[in-house]
Amino acid sequence: MIGEPTDRTRVKRLPEKARYDRATVDAIFDEALICHVGFVHDGAPFVIPTIHARVGDTLYFHGSPASRMLRLMKDGAHVAVTATLLDGIVAARSVFHHSMHYRSAMVMGSARVVDTPEERAIAFEAITEAVLPGRWAEARHPSRNEDQGTLLAAVQIEEFSAKVSERDVGDEPDDYALPIWAGVIPLSLVSGVPEPDDRNLDGVVAPPSVRRFVQEMRDTGRGT
Amino acid sequence: MIGEPTDRTRVKRLPEKARYDRATVDAIFDEALICHVGFVHDGAPFVIPTIHARVGDTLYFHGSPASRMLRLMKDGAHVAVTATLLDGIVAARSVFHHSMHYRSAMVMGSARVVDTPEERAIAFEAITEAVLPGRWAEARHPSRNEDQGTLLAAVQIEEFSAKVSERDVGDEPDDYALPIWAGVIPLSLVSGVPEPDDRNLDGVVAPPSVRRFVQEMRDTGRGT
Repeated sequence: MIGEPTDRTRVKRLPEKARYDRATVDAIFDEALICHVGFVHDGAPFVIPTIHARVGDTLYFHGSPASRMLRLMKDGAHVAVTATLLDGIVAARSVFHHSMHYRSAMVMGSARVVDTPEERAIAFEAITEAVLPGRWAEARHPSRNEDQGTLLAAVQIEEFSAKVSERDVGDEPDDYALPIWAGVIPLSLVSGVPEPDDRNLDGVVAPPSVRRFVQEMRDTGRGT
Repeated sequence: MIGEPTDRTRVKRLPEKARYDRATVDAIFDEALICHVGFVHDGAPFVIPTIHARVGDTLYFHGSPASRMLRLMKDGAHVAVTATLLDGIVAARSVFHHSMHYRSAMVMGSARVVDTPEERAIAFEAITEAVLPGRWAEARHPSRNEDQGTLLAAVQIEEFSAKVSERDVGDEPDDYALPIWAGVIPLSLVSGVPEPDDRNLDGVVAPPSVRRFVQEMRDTGRGT
């Protein structure tokens, strides 16, 4: 699916980096462990980091009903949701051409509260699985009180854009004669060794979700 | 320096995680390689990832004069600037108590254009050094054309807050009897082996800035 950029999602600067296809946008949100949600309150912009999950055309968010962001999302606030993966630093011969390798996606839309039991179940599970796939089957599910104490919000992926910067060093023609090192420093998010809680019962070892996560982060890395 | 939260920077949810001291805010911005800038355009929020640098009480940003964000910053737009470092995943016995270890800081203020030659020189160098310390001394400095083709903007760190979540597993009392593994999966940003540009001159090896960066990321990791 190729989306058409709207005036506000059209990438103005370096349009060759722009991507308007849903597959790119989805892949960035699916890989990112967190995103940043922007909203307007009393005329001022706010930007808050949060966990998200994507299910089809929907991004889900959760939190306490006391959260400023969730309260506004509940009331249909306009939001911008941005996920960014940092892949590397590009060191050029000139300061001017230094840049980063990154993939970033922004979705703009109105938030809505998730209030049917069916969709709430989908959202709760998706948010758990987005961070640690397989964990939903391992951990204790929400009690009625916990469920009622969680505000779930959704934003439809209808207006979106992405920017992918993966170009290697691009210096000015004359600068290639300079004896200055240029290149790319790759970056990735990795996991360390899991630290078991002191109160784990005897014989309880790290479960498949945790072992797979650590293994995958070791094998392939992950943008941040 | 301890700041007083304003109504809009006061952390509403989980106030025990809130930090209003400048040292915490500064440390988060200094460690983060990128931040997310939120602004309002035609009534809608936008959130854009960008490189930043802190010098004292000022955050600097740079980019093309064609950038939507920089154009608005030039005109004094109200912005929220948020830097987030992701330090780990907290896997609890219950789905409800899963969380993340993170450090996040938000600065709210009005942007201004950086227009004196003295401050522009400071900002240009700081932005280069923020990503790769020592690089300013190694790379070719901006030409007059490059300097004129760069829009530099600044936001004062006057209204700010931070949130630091470093608490380990906190489950419900009854859940400690469950045979479910709980613990923390540490996360950090690391660098891979630098990839030299094909057109580096013979004998030009990775310079101190690059070697130090890679070494430091290997030794200590870095939040994302």
